[in-house]
Amino acid sequence: MTPAPAAANPSALPFADRLAAAVVAKKNAVLVGLDPRLASLPAGLQVAENAPWAEQAEAFRAFCRGVIDVVAPLVPAVKPQAAFFEQLGPAGMSALADAITYAREKGLLVILDGKRNDIGSTATAYAEGYLGRGPECAWGADALTVSPYLGDDSLTPFVDVSRQRGAGIFVLVKTSNPGGKTFQDLKVDGRPLYRHVADHVEAIARSTAGACGYGLAGAVVGATYPEQSVELRAAMPHTWFLVPGYGSQGATARDVAGAFDPRGLGAIVNNSRGIIFAHARREYERFGAARWQEAVEAATRDMIASLAAETPAGKLA
Amino acid sequence: MTPAPAAANPSALPFADRLAAAVVAKKNAVLVGLDPRLASLPAGLQVAENAPWAEQAEAFRAFCRGVIDVVAPLVPAVKPQAAFFEQLGPAGMSALADAITYAREKGLLVILDGKRNDIGSTATAYAEGYLGRGPECAWGADALTVSPYLGDDSLTPFVDVSRQRGAGIFVLVKTSNPGGKTFQDLKVDGRPLYRHVADHVEAIARSTAGACGYGLAGAVVGATYPEQSVELRAAMPHTWFLVPGYGSQGATARDVAGAFDPRGLGAIVNNSRGIIFAHARREYERFGAARWQEAVEAATRDMIASLAAETPAGKLA
Repeated sequence: MTPAPAAANPSALPFADRLAAAVVAKKNAVLVGLDPRLASLPAGLQVAENAPWAEQAEAFRAFCRGVIDVVAPLVPAVKPQAAFFEQLGPAGMSALADAITYAREKGLLVILDGKRNDIGSTATAYAEGYLGRGPECAWGADALTVSPYLGDDSLTPFVDVSRQRGAGIFVLVKTSNPGGKTFQDLKVDGRPLYRHVADHVEAIARSTAGACGYGLAGAVVGATYPEQSVELRAAMPHTWFLVPGYGSQGATARDVAGAFDPRGLGAIVNNSRGIIFAHARREYERFGAARWQEAVEAATRDMIASLAAETPAGKLA
Repeated sequence: MTPAPAAANPSALPFADRLAAAVVAKKNAVLVGLDPRLASLPAGLQVAENAPWAEQAEAFRAFCRGVIDVVAPLVPAVKPQAAFFEQLGPAGMSALADAITYAREKGLLVILDGKRNDIGSTATAYAEGYLGRGPECAWGADALTVSPYLGDDSLTPFVDVSRQRGAGIFVLVKTSNPGGKTFQDLKVDGRPLYRHVADHVEAIARSTAGACGYGLAGAVVGATYPEQSVELRAAMPHTWFLVPGYGSQGATARDVAGAFDPRGLGAIVNNSRGIIFAHARREYERFGAARWQEAVEAATRDMIASLAAETPAGKLA
């Protein structure tokens, strides 16, 4: 099934359908992670480590805009990592707001990686603050990553607000880090905990599935566990996967193939450092720090090509 | 054992010892939650629901300062809830920064309730951004709540930064909401998941225990599950408990008694709405909205008295 094209007011459509439309339109499923780090910025944007927070935040703002300018025509979505902006205090939060707004203006979907979680009216505050593009939302992201430990009633406020606002969430299910196994792999009734979390997420996704076949609740499923990706893809047919771990964490295009459905939908594959700091990678050092944006473009195009060659995302081309 | 008195530079001491000293000095374990909500502000601080974010944030700033002015002489610590500030965008984050700084200036410990969590250098960014009182930290909280789903290596960066900076964390273990059971109570090898999380937290706490007997890793243990509090108190002898659920969520002083050690240490009991919006409670309506700070003081003193009467915290008096 081909997702419907975006309507006149695209933000009124369900997030899952907007994501599918963006992936189809851009013909790839690359999610560029905006993880600004002072020490890794290209030479021209560097500021001193002890520069005032506002100066560091201004460097982040300029850098993120520079990345967005390059990737906006190429990929469907970006994923700002809240932590790096938060590290700079309120000034950093202003840079985050700028990155979200600028990315949206450039036609990108924005998945904010904040791994927020709480209960009751507190979870509602996070959801209302971060999710949706209307004037009632201060941040205006299209989706937010969410941690599940607090349980089903902690997810409900995020689901309710997402439904009202055409937004979405990605719930941590099976993460890419080695320590993900500490609790996620503990066996409950013979199945690892992450499968129980997966069941909850899939139930939400199934009950909210839109035209593209996917619902508003997605799952974070690490690329570093290819077998679990395949297992979870089968168990979660209505759930978009946000796949971290590609590139810098060691996973290859082949490792993420199982996260896609046969149409080439169902997964977006994140790459942060490997794209935004491509100028520091040996493969792209020919560009030098001054032409860092060309390195970003080359790395993005190379990742698109790898996914097309090695995964069902090739069907999008 | 009596905790050592605060040194000349109190922020250089381990967080657990600073918390113990503050509880002993104030003779109670009340943790006042700073959960500003526009609709609940006293009449004199109200702004329109559709007022600009900066105006709403200014109301939060004034309200939090007003609460802190009242409770600083009475209690050891406050707990700003990040979500309510984040809901107002970058302007709200400035109000949060102000609340943290103002509370510290008034001699309070600040436990930021952000339930942050991530992996690797991203977790480090959260830890370095929020934890510690030095110029290298943009926010300057003494402790931060943390979610454990991502596993042991996701906790390590928070532990490392806490150790370096005399800060602390409170890891979600058994939360106060009804849905906390969804995953936390699932049985792994015959014991609920939260007991496995508790083991990890206690191991960190034991290995970092200071003069007061507690370590830098605390646990969030909901007051709404008194039996589990008793069970966890026994299983986690080196772990400070942050106890939510008192008051508005239905738990009484008697329900939280089991979270304390026999000295009256080991637990801090949070109350948010029941204190900061006391002017709206029938018991304190005699003060009226204009004298809302007197209602805050009365509610704080009443909670201190209840805990002293019904729990080992009475030994602190």
